[in-house]
Amino acid sequence: MTEATGNANRMTTMKALVFHPPNRVALEDRAKPTIRQATDAIVRIITTSICGTDLHILKGDVPTIPDGRILGHEGVGIVEEVGSSVLGFCKGDKVLISVITSCGRCSFCKQGMYSHCRSGGWCLGNSIDGTQAEYVRIPFADNGLYLLPPKVEDEAAVMLSCILPTGLECGVLNGQVKPGDLVAIVGAGPVGLAALLTAQLYSPAEIIMMDLDDNRLEMARTMGATQVVNTSDGKALEQVMALTKTAGVDVAIEAVGCPATFDICQAIIAPGGRIANVGVHGKSVELHLERLWSSNITLATRLVDARTTPMLLKMVESGRLDAKKLVSHRFKLSEIMKAYDTFANAAKQHALKVILKN
Amino acid sequence: MTEATGNANRMTTMKALVFHPPNRVALEDRAKPTIRQATDAIVRIITTSICGTDLHILKGDVPTIPDGRILGHEGVGIVEEVGSSVLGFCKGDKVLISVITSCGRCSFCKQGMYSHCRSGGWCLGNSIDGTQAEYVRIPFADNGLYLLPPKVEDEAAVMLSCILPTGLECGVLNGQVKPGDLVAIVGAGPVGLAALLTAQLYSPAEIIMMDLDDNRLEMARTMGATQVVNTSDGKALEQVMALTKTAGVDVAIEAVGCPATFDICQAIIAPGGRIANVGVHGKSVELHLERLWSSNITLATRLVDARTTPMLLKMVESGRLDAKKLVSHRFKLSEIMKAYDTFANAAKQHALKVILKN
Amino acid sequence: MTEATGNANRMTTMKALVFHPPNRVALEDRAKPTIRQATDAIVRIITTSICGTDLHILKGDVPTIPDGRILGHEGVGIVEEVGSSVLGFCKGDKVLISVITSCGRCSFCKQGMYSHCRSGGWCLGNSIDGTQAEYVRIPFADNGLYLLPPKVEDEAAVMLSCILPTGLECGVLNGQVKPGDLVAIVGAGPVGLAALLTAQLYSPAEIIMMDLDDNRLEMARTMGATQVVNTSDGKALEQVMALTKTAGVDVAIEAVGCPATFDICQAIIAPGGRIANVGVHGKSVELHLERLWSSNITLATRLVDARTTPMLLKMVESGRLDAKKLVSHRFKLSEIMKAYDTFANAAKQHALKVILKN
Amino acid sequence: MTEATGNANRMTTMKALVFHPPNRVALEDRAKPTIRQATDAIVRIITTSICGTDLHILKGDVPTIPDGRILGHEGVGIVEEVGSSVLGFCKGDKVLISVITSCGRCSFCKQGMYSHCRSGGWCLGNSIDGTQAEYVRIPFADNGLYLLPPKVEDEAAVMLSCILPTGLECGVLNGQVKPGDLVAIVGAGPVGLAALLTAQLYSPAEIIMMDLDDNRLEMARTMGATQVVNTSDGKALEQVMALTKTAGVDVAIEAVGCPATFDICQAIIAPGGRIANVGVHGKSVELHLERLWSSNITLATRLVDARTTPMLLKMVESGRLDAKKLVSHRFKLSEIMKAYDTFANAAKQHALKVILKN
Repeated sequence: MTEATGNANRMTTMKALVFHPPNRVALEDRAKPTIRQATDAIVRIITTSICGTDLHILKGDVPTIPDGRILGHEGVGIVEEVGSSVLGFCKGDKVLISVITSCGRCSFCKQGMYSHCRSGGWCLGNSIDGTQAEYVRIPFADNGLYLLPPKVEDEAAVMLSCILPTGLECGVLNGQVKPGDLVAIVGAGPVGLAALLTAQLYSPAEIIMMDLDDNRLEMARTMGATQVVNTSDGKALEQVMALTKTAGVDVAIEAVGCPATFDICQAIIAPGGRIANVGVHGKSVELHLERLWSSNITLATRLVDARTTPMLLKMVESGRLDAKKLVSHRFKLSEIMKAYDTFANAAKQHALKVILKN
Repeated sequence: MTEATGNANRMTTMKALVFHPPNRVALEDRAKPTIRQATDAIVRIITTSICGTDLHILKGDVPTIPDGRILGHEGVGIVEEVGSSVLGFCKGDKVLISVITSCGRCSFCKQGMYSHCRSGGWCLGNSIDGTQAEYVRIPFADNGLYLLPPKVEDEAAVMLSCILPTGLECGVLNGQVKPGDLVAIVGAGPVGLAALLTAQLYSPAEIIMMDLDDNRLEMARTMGATQVVNTSDGKALEQVMALTKTAGVDVAIEAVGCPATFDICQAIIAPGGRIANVGVHGKSVELHLERLWSSNITLATRLVDARTTPMLLKMVESGRLDAKKLVSHRFKLSEIMKAYDTFANAAKQHALKVILKN
Repeated sequence: MTEATGNANRMTTMKALVFHPPNRVALEDRAKPTIRQATDAIVRIITTSICGTDLHILKGDVPTIPDGRILGHEGVGIVEEVGSSVLGFCKGDKVLISVITSCGRCSFCKQGMYSHCRSGGWCLGNSIDGTQAEYVRIPFADNGLYLLPPKVEDEAAVMLSCILPTGLECGVLNGQVKPGDLVAIVGAGPVGLAALLTAQLYSPAEIIMMDLDDNRLEMARTMGATQVVNTSDGKALEQVMALTKTAGVDVAIEAVGCPATFDICQAIIAPGGRIANVGVHGKSVELHLERLWSSNITLATRLVDARTTPMLLKMVESGRLDAKKLVSHRFKLSEIMKAYDTFANAAKQHALKVILKN
Repeated sequence: MTEATGNANRMTTMKALVFHPPNRVALEDRAKPTIRQATDAIVRIITTSICGTDLHILKGDVPTIPDGRILGHEGVGIVEEVGSSVLGFCKGDKVLISVITSCGRCSFCKQGMYSHCRSGGWCLGNSIDGTQAEYVRIPFADNGLYLLPPKVEDEAAVMLSCILPTGLECGVLNGQVKPGDLVAIVGAGPVGLAALLTAQLYSPAEIIMMDLDDNRLEMARTMGATQVVNTSDGKALEQVMALTKTAGVDVAIEAVGCPATFDICQAIIAPGGRIANVGVHGKSVELHLERLWSSNITLATRLVDARTTPMLLKMVESGRLDAKKLVSHRFKLSEIMKAYDTFANAAKQHALKVILKN
């Protein structure tokens, strides 16, 4: 093969992590994406990551995803090409990619509920090809990309595609965390830790982190938890009640997604408190309305809308939010199978977020 | 007995509806209440009413209430006497009595959560003697009484002691009803109808009333329901979905207090919607987080704090809220046993709120 | 000229009201607009209106408007053609046109401040050709058009292009009108009356309308004002204070745009009150901070963002808002010069909004 | 005099700083205060401070204060005696005294506008004797005192009587500071610095401090200002515009109280921004509505209600707010004349808040 041909080839194919149901992924050659709509952009990925949702896909929990889909919904890259109606970006711009695709026009978008966009939502690595590849097509590019300020490092920025907005919006904002509040976060995985980091933007007096894994609780301490409670010994409720002088907590953030952890939230919430559900639940839970009907409590659920990404970018740029704290491991894109292994064995590997670089 | 003695007697005893557990009430002679604290007032009752909660007490649902308690927490009357620290009232003032006793000093009162007041809450007819009597002692009188404007009729005012603030606060405010909203209210009893009347203060586009009883649904129509759905035929969900063009409702107000009606609320709520629980629940419910985790919904519970009573008084005074629509029957206090019978057989008697006059 | 040529001609030219600075308008033949961007739509106008702003333009108050500009920013019409990126509309749709052009993508649009859109704002009849014509080009059509529900009459709908959202957003929402509030509106012109109509969506206890013109005050009474005060006799402040039992008003809406009317608002506002500025001011005002610094008051200004148009459409559709009350006169588009005369002499002609039909 | 008599004497008289109009104060012997109402408490002062308002009094700016008034409205002390209706305190409790006296019962108190309480407001050292003394009578003690947690130092606590709630409520809350905001504070005196410290509870991206005095600007840097601008050289507006990439600031806090500093706020505020007035103004200002009418800005004024004192106590207790940073000098109560001198020459003495200890 001549060099010219090689170049041409590089220009039309790319490496990408492809899903084969029910539970296999492989790094394969795929055609490079091209502009389809006037509002599209093509982005060359330089940094991406793996989300807990990607593991769910591999377990068969998202059965709508077809064979051949490229996974991934997080990323930083360089704009390669834009459609004729794209206003805010041009070739060469360094950008952050949002997990959420949104048209900016429908009634849900007008309310800021971008996750429910009638022409978008969580599409990347789900209903369309995603970011665990050398290139990705971004629909409605003006609404799905953000210019990366020079001061913000790629690794920090990738934390703003999905994990930090999820912790902030589904946990902290749904929990209405305020200065002086007592907050408990149940689950110290990446999204619980993202809630922990972003809760501090609202200055609660105390943040109690709860988990089964002492290692993760120790990490939580270094990220700002003022108290930690291991939930494995059956005394967690007593401990929280003692820490709050029997008042209970103002905000309980459920960051696991199972009945037992939801139960903890119900048990420790103070009158007037807010329960914010971040976890993805596979089955129903028992809600103790026979007790809570009179407690003036609020329970809120939500998909991440990623509407806070611009604000989080400002906070990272100003040095007030250290997003990189969530990064535990770094790999090349060519090592992505190893990265998946590491992330899938997070507890053993002491893994939080893994970074993939092109 | 001479007449003089009789007079003196009349001044120290009174008629009162007394509770004898487990489930008996009787109109009996009792000692007239006297000032105990500097912040107390004694009020001569001229109008009172019976609440659904009073029926719950008679069913044994509030086991903490002791033998001999005078029931009732609604009323309009004339101030007879005030303690030395009462600032805002004096003998002869015509007043509305709030269901909620509040100190105005504790941390819950500072947040407007008067129902959780550390020295108060729902006390009248519960932890202290209530208003179904000729006289009542009102603790923290400055926080538990409202001067009645001359324009406001007694019958209208009594609806502001408990039932209208309950419908408004637990239903409408917890549901965050806004102009243009689609609202469904499940349960067309007095509290559901109170939610219906007060929801209109926030101008929803549509209010769908749901109940098993066609008679109550017809009453709901006359009070402002734009659609009614009888839930007895198993097609209620389909009907609501048809009425909302499959979108579901922005606000679902549960005004019954059982798992089946809570289920309706879960089933019809639109993404971004709010479920407000008004009903008193005796057991837990199944919450479908496996579906709702991603729906951006909010569920709120609450005791009535009666903090909206002053606003409701202004609305009644200005003629913009017709509180009397909730009154269906009128009795003398001496006929209170008959009034209880009527209210206890509300469906058959077509009863909403019953008025008792002294 | 053959008929065929005539048809062709009708298809490429149209009648339009053209502005010639400094202060002349004329109904002239102009080329029919065509699609320029993939996000454009062309709309055939069937109903339009004249805004107070159009009169300002004729007085030379908007010097940036060039010779030849077609005026007008209100309208109802039929979609003739859409660009390739328009998602929500197709040829034949009956639509309401918003005064505000917005990209739906910039940081201001993301906050709902569409009036400050970096690629839009108030463009129609200002920086681009407007709606007082047979056809108009609408940029970002998905964000600037609304499907008209069959139940909503054209005349009512045209009131939702600009005047009702202006009264609601700049007056009522900026004034945070709540149930039970005492509200004063200074200025009973069309926008003041629009504030009056939409304030009632939030159920204030009283709305005091203030103006120099008794005829307009009478109209205000028929539209829901509970009190009217003629400000010409120098006793207006005393009257408002008497009507509010010396408390002042919770909300004062300035709907004129001059120092004297702003002064009234400052003088009558209660502690904790909100002053909402709707009027377009040509000069600065004196703000009495030496008194107001301690009054816990809020003053808010705003361009109309027209973000409430969808909600207002629902209210008109449900029959709860009678938008047509603002219409006083009707003309054919060919009579537009006469319509301008009528509207320019509004007091004498008892004119509110004038409707122009094609 | 025998020792016994001396003791008795010490029990009925005390040292106090007494105001003699127009502009003299003196440390004098005064009768110790006694309980007058059942809701009063008597507190023995152990720490107090001097407020900028006290200097205003000495300049004759508060002409309603009579000869003989004891000044001061800040303090920490020990409860000596309580009236019979006081619920929350007893002899020996260590307490923080609020600048605001509030009944907890009137309509203003119900809205949290304690500063406008119909039986209270700013009373201490104004309409009743204050805290710059050995003892003080606190009316409505349950609403004007806070139990001091053991962890909180007296000096830190005294900053919560007035200065920190003022900066927070009048500046930060009225300015609606949010994560990611650009904030400017005009005036780096104690109250401006209090706004600076408390603004950080809401995580703005940048806080620009503006003042004429480089020394104060340096102090501001140590307290969290990310940028400082000296306003003496006429280039302040340009500098702020450069720092904000010409966007202007989201929040401008006026912490001086004169037309020139208010003008700066008007000039630098971004569309959609909030101006919060903290300064006490002696004359009116010119408000540029001819420009601001279309800027979607909000201007808010307020007296301190001190409703945030409990939250601030939690923040100090948890170690997240270093209130002591505002303390620059310490004196004994017997040295109060010298303390006043120091505070009156704050710029020269590099003084912020001065502490007085008994």
